[in-house]
Amino acid sequence: MKKQNIKLNNVYIKSTFSSVGSKEGEGPLSNYFDAKYTDELMGQDSWEKAESTLMKNTVSGALTKAGMTPNELSILFAGDLLNQCTASSYGLKAFDVPFFGLYGACSTFVEGMSLASIAIDGGHTPNAAIVTSSHFCSSQKQYRFPLEYGEVRTPSSQWTVTGSGCAVLSCQKSKIKVNGVTVGKIVDLGVTDANNMGAAMAPAAADTIFTHLCETNTSPEDYDCIVTGDLAVVGTDLMLELMNQKKIDLKKKHLDCGSLIYNRDEQNVDAGGSGCGCVASVFSGFFAKKLENKEIKKMLLVGTGALMSPSSVLLGEPIAGIAHAIELEASDS
Amino acid sequence: MKKQNIKLNNVYIKSTFSSVGSKEGEGPLSNYFDAKYTDELMGQDSWEKAESTLMKNTVSGALTKAGMTPNELSILFAGDLLNQCTASSYGLKAFDVPFFGLYGACSTFVEGMSLASIAIDGGHTPNAAIVTSSHFCSSQKQYRFPLEYGEVRTPSSQWTVTGSGCAVLSCQKSKIKVNGVTVGKIVDLGVTDANNMGAAMAPAAADTIFTHLCETNTSPEDYDCIVTGDLAVVGTDLMLELMNQKKIDLKKKHLDCGSLIYNRDEQNVDAGGSGCGCVASVFSGFFAKKLENKEIKKMLLVGTGALMSPSSVLLGEPIAGIAHAIELEASDS
Repeated sequence: MKKQNIKLNNVYIKSTFSSVGSKEGEGPLSNYFDAKYTDELMGQDSWEKAESTLMKNTVSGALTKAGMTPNELSILFAGDLLNQCTASSYGLKAFDVPFFGLYGACSTFVEGMSLASIAIDGGHTPNAAIVTSSHFCSSQKQYRFPLEYGEVRTPSSQWTVTGSGCAVLSCQKSKIKVNGVTVGKIVDLGVTDANNMGAAMAPAAADTIFTHLCETNTSPEDYDCIVTGDLAVVGTDLMLELMNQKKIDLKKKHLDCGSLIYNRDEQNVDAGGSGCGCVASVFSGFFAKKLENKEIKKMLLVGTGALMSPSSVLLGEPIAGIAHAIELEASDS
Repeated sequence: MKKQNIKLNNVYIKSTFSSVGSKEGEGPLSNYFDAKYTDELMGQDSWEKAESTLMKNTVSGALTKAGMTPNELSILFAGDLLNQCTASSYGLKAFDVPFFGLYGACSTFVEGMSLASIAIDGGHTPNAAIVTSSHFCSSQKQYRFPLEYGEVRTPSSQWTVTGSGCAVLSCQKSKIKVNGVTVGKIVDLGVTDANNMGAAMAPAAADTIFTHLCETNTSPEDYDCIVTGDLAVVGTDLMLELMNQKKIDLKKKHLDCGSLIYNRDEQNVDAGGSGCGCVASVFSGFFAKKLENKEIKKMLLVGTGALMSPSSVLLGEPIAGIAHAIELEASDS
């Protein structure tokens, strides 16, 4: 039978770095982020350039923590939510490194970790970095309404995280080992509400988590936590229900980056956070540190993406989802 | 020194399939394309759905030629030019296979071949397919003007190819061997004219070709041809000039898919063809057949992409380019 899981033997996370905006910096994970910006424009004159700057600074931070110069980086994988992924291409061109652009919506960070891990494990590159970003203001401008319009949000809507995360992977042993990846399929259960991304991504998350557990012959009890990217509260409930239908109780082990990053009672984010920068900043800021200090010994990180565009929604197309998973373990080396 | 070239030992092209629209079907390569559509809507009710249909049928064609069912395909890499790559996600979801979405503008086809080759060579997957597409009408609608407007084109502008190409790669020996890939960097020489993509991509193409020749210790004479994606005539002249400055005469060996696909004297395409479907359909339709029957013994295929969006152009950002190269050889097996 065709397998979606790919086992890896020689891949480690050398460093991670996370950057967030002011709202994220005031949230429950505040102390874990490496860089917190209070100026949403990051000193630039457009939201797009602000997002590029955020991404660039995040890669610089991760390289510094890894003790590397850009010249030592072999491949950079990157992606974002802007049309034609311009936050990545404009933000990262100055590094002058071999570059692969990705688009997996909010699953892109884990997609990049998967492809980087495959290249490192096969001995084709000694190291690689992954970076993704999102910015609330550039996303609102592109996907929804001008900020000045004062959009009334629906309770199922999610707040796009202003944030970026970068991970540097390497074949050299370090504190976090990559055990394997499970490559997701596009899953479409017919959700058409562009204000309910969590619902669109939940079936893909459930499909990938179930496949990962089956193919690796593991159960939720084998992990300290199974972490999704940005299902937020509506998507989380749906995903847990779908897993229940498969006779798997994930509730005690499940965490969601989109639910963790904000205080929903106080921060007016409706269902929670989303965006390419959500799982990237929360993993790079929070979970990587927990793995490094062994508060978490083994986890499954599941990047979740909603595959749609404003045009596809206007054409009445359903919003398909995709989820890629990466299994990570605290390492003694 | 960090290398951009990655040598590969166990990767072969099992099959390719190309599909094009009516204008391309009337061009000089007409007899080489596997499928030619005369209805630009491909039976759908929107240009976006037409492009998705084109992509889906192209993958089906490649799988049929490879003697495979979708269930035997281990990973599908895909990308296109529509915002959020929706031609890919909507067109390909029905295959229900592990999926990686890419964005490298018109370099995406060679980017996908590179990543698929790395995964196969490392033993992480037995096979993988790559598909990219573009559609003149969906591109005009998104990037330029409504078709009804009757845009006056500049002489340096390129005609977006309505086409798609798919390659199925495998570890099993077959008639075309993948010798290696050279991963490109983002190169920006400050071109700001969105009607002159060839000029924006030429520096990246020159950079990647020069790096490939240096790192593999080869010269143009070692190849039957060095083929770029869609520099068209303006970009080709610039690329050849940049190579001349590096003391390399590429003129006798160079071909460009954007120049080959149309008859410029008769087909009103200005500088030539472009788009994610250009290199994909011309390689899959024309060059793959030449390699299979050994009319070409060794070639370098260089996918070239212009990294920009309509927003980035409005913001006054220069258009950066990227080019990835893959070295292919006719094989006896």
